[in-house]
Amino acid sequence: MSQVKILKGNIIFTKTPEEFQVFEGGYIVVEGTRVKSVSQTLDKQYDSSLVEDYGDKLIIPGFVDAHIHAPQFENTGIGLDKELLPWLEMYTFPEEAKFLDTDYAERIYSRFITCLWEYGTTRSIVFSTLHKEATERLIELFKKSGLGAYVGKVNMDRNSPPFLTETTEDSLRDTEELIQKYGEGDLVKFIITPRFVPTCTPELMEGLGELAEKYDVPVQSHLSENHGEIEWVRNLHPESKHYADVYNRHKMFGHKPTIMAHCVHNDEEEIELIKENHVFVAHCPTSNLNLSSGLAPIRKYMNKGIDVGIGTDVSGGHTFSMNECIVSAVQISKMYNLYVDNKDSMLSTSEAFYLATKGGGKFFGKVGSFEAGYEFDALVIDDSFLKGEAERSIEERLQRYIYIGKKFSVEKRFVAGKEISKPQF
Amino acid sequence: MSQVKILKGNIIFTKTPEEFQVFEGGYIVVEGTRVKSVSQTLDKQYDSSLVEDYGDKLIIPGFVDAHIHAPQFENTGIGLDKELLPWLEMYTFPEEAKFLDTDYAERIYSRFITCLWEYGTTRSIVFSTLHKEATERLIELFKKSGLGAYVGKVNMDRNSPPFLTETTEDSLRDTEELIQKYGEGDLVKFIITPRFVPTCTPELMEGLGELAEKYDVPVQSHLSENHGEIEWVRNLHPESKHYADVYNRHKMFGHKPTIMAHCVHNDEEEIELIKENHVFVAHCPTSNLNLSSGLAPIRKYMNKGIDVGIGTDVSGGHTFSMNECIVSAVQISKMYNLYVDNKDSMLSTSEAFYLATKGGGKFFGKVGSFEAGYEFDALVIDDSFLKGEAERSIEERLQRYIYIGKKFSVEKRFVAGKEISKPQF
Repeated sequence: MSQVKILKGNIIFTKTPEEFQVFEGGYIVVEGTRVKSVSQTLDKQYDSSLVEDYGDKLIIPGFVDAHIHAPQFENTGIGLDKELLPWLEMYTFPEEAKFLDTDYAERIYSRFITCLWEYGTTRSIVFSTLHKEATERLIELFKKSGLGAYVGKVNMDRNSPPFLTETTEDSLRDTEELIQKYGEGDLVKFIITPRFVPTCTPELMEGLGELAEKYDVPVQSHLSENHGEIEWVRNLHPESKHYADVYNRHKMFGHKPTIMAHCVHNDEEEIELIKENHVFVAHCPTSNLNLSSGLAPIRKYMNKGIDVGIGTDVSGGHTFSMNECIVSAVQISKMYNLYVDNKDSMLSTSEAFYLATKGGGKFFGKVGSFEAGYEFDALVIDDSFLKGEAERSIEERLQRYIYIGKKFSVEKRFVAGKEISKPQF
Repeated sequence: MSQVKILKGNIIFTKTPEEFQVFEGGYIVVEGTRVKSVSQTLDKQYDSSLVEDYGDKLIIPGFVDAHIHAPQFENTGIGLDKELLPWLEMYTFPEEAKFLDTDYAERIYSRFITCLWEYGTTRSIVFSTLHKEATERLIELFKKSGLGAYVGKVNMDRNSPPFLTETTEDSLRDTEELIQKYGEGDLVKFIITPRFVPTCTPELMEGLGELAEKYDVPVQSHLSENHGEIEWVRNLHPESKHYADVYNRHKMFGHKPTIMAHCVHNDEEEIELIKENHVFVAHCPTSNLNLSSGLAPIRKYMNKGIDVGIGTDVSGGHTFSMNECIVSAVQISKMYNLYVDNKDSMLSTSEAFYLATKGGGKFFGKVGSFEAGYEFDALVIDDSFLKGEAERSIEERLQRYIYIGKKFSVEKRFVAGKEISKPQF
């Protein structure tokens, strides 16, 4: 039998989006890397076992950031009076070009990962830059940290500034080498990452699709974030029915596990393709508000059974806080209801929390819940600074932590059963 | 000559919404309570004067919270999966009822004011509850703190729960007594505060309008926050053309300085009345997103020359942070552009900052700017924790502080020339 760890505290998580599972003063039994059981009282067989008692604190699943750009760390909080395309040109591309310098990459990526750790993000799906060496550094730093991640070297061989363009050949060769080195892994793995259709020639996409197939590697990219971008894709690919079809033609749309960021303005046919091909949606609410992208139809995706996670999209999103992204996701769902389609689109707190944990966690396998068999990714939350005079239920305390908690509220993090201390890079 | 104080630092503020005024390593000369001059170099007459040198820190105007409910302090961060009217009934009214207990009021209001202080809100326009004694405590605590505020006892003599309803007579008498006691003041003053039309009988509104006239006291209330509320007002007042007309008929719509929170769904005729009567709008972006209220047409108000401030609207808004409200105001303006009326509605960072300082500050007189003659309300911001590897302009540093600064970034606060230390209640 693997080593057993038992934690006691106010356990709260979402098995389904509709409601919270609450075990006030309950127990989680962890065997090795996974949850064995969660219960209100402890089974007799553990009578003599050591219990880590977190008293009145909350124990929740670790957050899963389904879409984030590591090299944009330095740009958090600026440039947000721009739309997507000018923002890329003025702020993002010049910053990403700096990652040719591997020492710079090492410094920034160290701070990036520490920031994820601080905010309680235990897994993330990450874009690097097009630079192979910098991407290796990022992967190595993630491995050292103990946090879980998919990391992708970005591919871009057209429509990019000269200082941030690679040849098709280099792009494919570097990607293949990274797959060979990091395609298999336990907590940190490589993911194929065409930046988005406008920056990838059909030849490059073709080659990437083949690599995904050959090595059985997942794929991430961007889809239908912004009207200007969609129009650009339409002009670049008149042969395709829609934006998603371009990826689909190159076997990068669910042929291997695929996650597409944004999906704000997909048409009905595209949404059907997302569903049929089991493509994940990474909803990036703060980014969509900041870059004037729009209100994504999340309720519609959920009703259709499409898998949805939540991404911070730093630095289109200005915050690493998944809490703030949950809040923005709820807010967006309400505005969608009022201004787009009054079909009960509002997300409840439990639904948005589900997306930020189990929803995105599904891309990693059994992650984001405390059900038996799930990898034990968890946060211990000390919300005592929020304690007022009123008696609050565990669910209300979680809601207050989401809305007004701070990163210092995260007292401990666990990934796959192991406590993760602050990265020492 | 009054006492002169000179501050040196990276001074940034908005004289007009369109652009920031920046004095990198500049000087502010304060004489008594007001700004005498702001300049890049110090006039020779001050050669022998002592200079408070804040080095590389930012010096910005203090924030003005144009709309906030002090008794809802304990409810921040919960109940936000509700719309306005159910939220009032389930969360807000039961909490406000507790303020019959003046000791409770004293405890909560102490924490409330400390929270304003922490976030760098130097002036605020505040709703209390209907309780006279609790309101007096709030006013006294504000006076003790040194922060500036308008504080209003809420009036509600109909359509309220039995535990939170007063008679018309009591309501008017208590209001008049508070005006007599606190109508005149330097930094803290009384403001007439009908909660909103649904909770005030015509008799009460009539009487409040007369008190405003008799004692020359300003007025605040809510206007057109939510569709359900607007419909309710229409049913209650078929004689009135619109919501604003109800206040106007009772001489509480700009007859004395008036500020109306929300103004999300006003019709064109109402907007004209707001403009003609010089009524201020308190835009509450986080609250409007949380309570499914909607996207207020702020650009339209600004284009018409209507005065607009920004309010946190705690606890419909979940945060005391005016920074977060500035971010939400910009986000809302972008969604307005996309989903309501594509007329260049986007607010720039300088425009939203203006609203959060000089825009709301105008309700207090010359407040919210560093132009000569303005009361010296200021924050010294230590943004060193945001320092990365890139060189940033002062304007970019301010933008980063707004988007990702924390309350601990506020190092010092000044109100009307005086440094305000943490309240010791």
